[in-house]
Amino acid sequence: MSAWEQNVRKVVPYVPGEQPGQEGIIKLNTNENPYPPAPGVARALREMESKQLRLYPDPAASVLVEALAGRYGLRPEQVFVGVGSDDVLAMAFLTFFNSGKPILFPDITYSFYDVWAKLFGIPYACQMLDENFCIRREDYVRENGGIVLANPNAPTGVAESIEGIRWILDKNPGIIVIIDEAYIDFGGDSAVSLIPEYENLLVVQTFSKSRSMAGMRIGCALGQPKLIKYLNDVKYSFNSYTMDLPALKLGVESVKDEEYFQETLRRIVATRERVKTELGKLGFVFPDSRSNFVFVSHPRIQARELFEALKERRIYVRYFPKPRIDNYLRITIGTDEEMDVLLDFLKKYVRQKER
Amino acid sequence: MSAWEQNVRKVVPYVPGEQPGQEGIIKLNTNENPYPPAPGVARALREMESKQLRLYPDPAASVLVEALAGRYGLRPEQVFVGVGSDDVLAMAFLTFFNSGKPILFPDITYSFYDVWAKLFGIPYACQMLDENFCIRREDYVRENGGIVLANPNAPTGVAESIEGIRWILDKNPGIIVIIDEAYIDFGGDSAVSLIPEYENLLVVQTFSKSRSMAGMRIGCALGQPKLIKYLNDVKYSFNSYTMDLPALKLGVESVKDEEYFQETLRRIVATRERVKTELGKLGFVFPDSRSNFVFVSHPRIQARELFEALKERRIYVRYFPKPRIDNYLRITIGTDEEMDVLLDFLKKYVRQKER
Repeated sequence: MSAWEQNVRKVVPYVPGEQPGQEGIIKLNTNENPYPPAPGVARALREMESKQLRLYPDPAASVLVEALAGRYGLRPEQVFVGVGSDDVLAMAFLTFFNSGKPILFPDITYSFYDVWAKLFGIPYACQMLDENFCIRREDYVRENGGIVLANPNAPTGVAESIEGIRWILDKNPGIIVIIDEAYIDFGGDSAVSLIPEYENLLVVQTFSKSRSMAGMRIGCALGQPKLIKYLNDVKYSFNSYTMDLPALKLGVESVKDEEYFQETLRRIVATRERVKTELGKLGFVFPDSRSNFVFVSHPRIQARELFEALKERRIYVRYFPKPRIDNYLRITIGTDEEMDVLLDFLKKYVRQKER
Repeated sequence: MSAWEQNVRKVVPYVPGEQPGQEGIIKLNTNENPYPPAPGVARALREMESKQLRLYPDPAASVLVEALAGRYGLRPEQVFVGVGSDDVLAMAFLTFFNSGKPILFPDITYSFYDVWAKLFGIPYACQMLDENFCIRREDYVRENGGIVLANPNAPTGVAESIEGIRWILDKNPGIIVIIDEAYIDFGGDSAVSLIPEYENLLVVQTFSKSRSMAGMRIGCALGQPKLIKYLNDVKYSFNSYTMDLPALKLGVESVKDEEYFQETLRRIVATRERVKTELGKLGFVFPDSRSNFVFVSHPRIQARELFEALKERRIYVRYFPKPRIDNYLRITIGTDEEMDVLLDFLKKYVRQKER
């Protein structure tokens, strides 16, 4: 090993879901939205001129920050934006979790939390979800250096009530509590309503799911101005110009079109509820999802086996070979047509297995 | 102070140059390129469809990585890309500078280096440039945890020879040496040619200056595969999807058009040389710039005063109120027309002062 290698920060990186390049697959593995972004996004894209790109973008991302502030009834000083919610969460870990005490998050949750903790040398302690994949609130009442909860949780889809979040906040004054609401728009109760009451609450959201803009890399954090100021200070110390011009221009258009946004959500939720019913009929079991995916298991079919069979049929879903969830598949809600292909396949597969 | 505030990572952030929103100003303060990106960039922008944005981009940024590898005669495993060279440099600091020993860089250089060092808790020791703003090579022969050199240097524009870089590399086996080549295309000798010989050399470049794409946030690091692998591991642990779809698509088009690239550089260099001659006639003194800016001082006019006078005339340049350089202005090379307006103003200003 070369001398310099001894000083390298060595990590086991997060492994993102496959992004297969081929045409003709049904891609239900990374929780993307099956519908396009709002029509205004297409219009803004058409109107962009490449000569505008020669200048640096606004480092404060003001147009986007102001649009989000308006959407959420907040002031611009309460909004932080980043390159996807992963960037926002990474910055938040780096900014707020420096106490030396362990931060707390569930044992089954977004698998990036422990990756960030390891990257930044933050101690952490996973708290076991109960047998229904629900948070046990009392687990979050102990000495800690921060709390991170995905709500609805991933990859389970289980939502925590706003009362539950409030209870945890009340028990942890002086502790930063991050609520990662990547999937909130599909049916959960947002903690944004609690921001005026709790200066230690940071709510993180993304444009990648409900706003159909995973390819554009936009995420945001919402909280009281003091929190956002600290986050911006660290961001400006890392990379002053994170949001490129297309992200600013197209992001704003998405936020502006509330009607399209709600209509898209309605369609996905309707499909999800129909898929739940059909999957139930086939014997699948799953926690009640409030997100744009379902997390399913079958009493008589191994998840890994089904994962491979689906892949062979060119239907990509997500399988996590991890304790407690290695017999589950996470299936993104696609269009009705995509879900019909999936359900047809599953019907035949289950019938054949039970013959 | 709230309890959580005690655990906040507190920083004094980098202050980027002003990005004034008004029309009609002459913007020579952040080293942007006065010419638009390559015509292929405009075409790719027109051909983008917003529905493509619903999917995550390729986390490996393969199309862009491959285009850059081809351009530099490297293999794709030797190329890392990020959200501007600031993102690339931040990742490199985080990845490679963990020895506890001070990293070395000049006292006058890109003002983000000490900001990153402070952000990540990396000790550092600034090495004084000589009176001509040149590096003293022997300053980089001492126990250290890494070396960072901007070449050409900012904000001075002074270039170090490839022999100088090689000498420093030879004296520092087992130490990561980062050469920040943000301005290399305007006339310096790139250290990319040394990559096959030195496994500890990382060369960082950006699309923000020579490629006219500051608004698109693209930077890259070039080095031996082992170095790039470590950098990617940390990147994947921070944010898997950093490069959005427009950055990938438009970035590739810029790299493809070598002819336009060279022609743009020729124009800027020609303007720079003419501006140098004219400034010399007016009594300005400056180190010989190999970049897209000049770093000028006048024996009889205070830099700060001139900075304010220019701003009033709606000509923005950069002033750094820092030791040893607080009587200098950094002036970006714009179009010939922009520089003529600047030169006319300076002629009158100097004449009036000397009356």
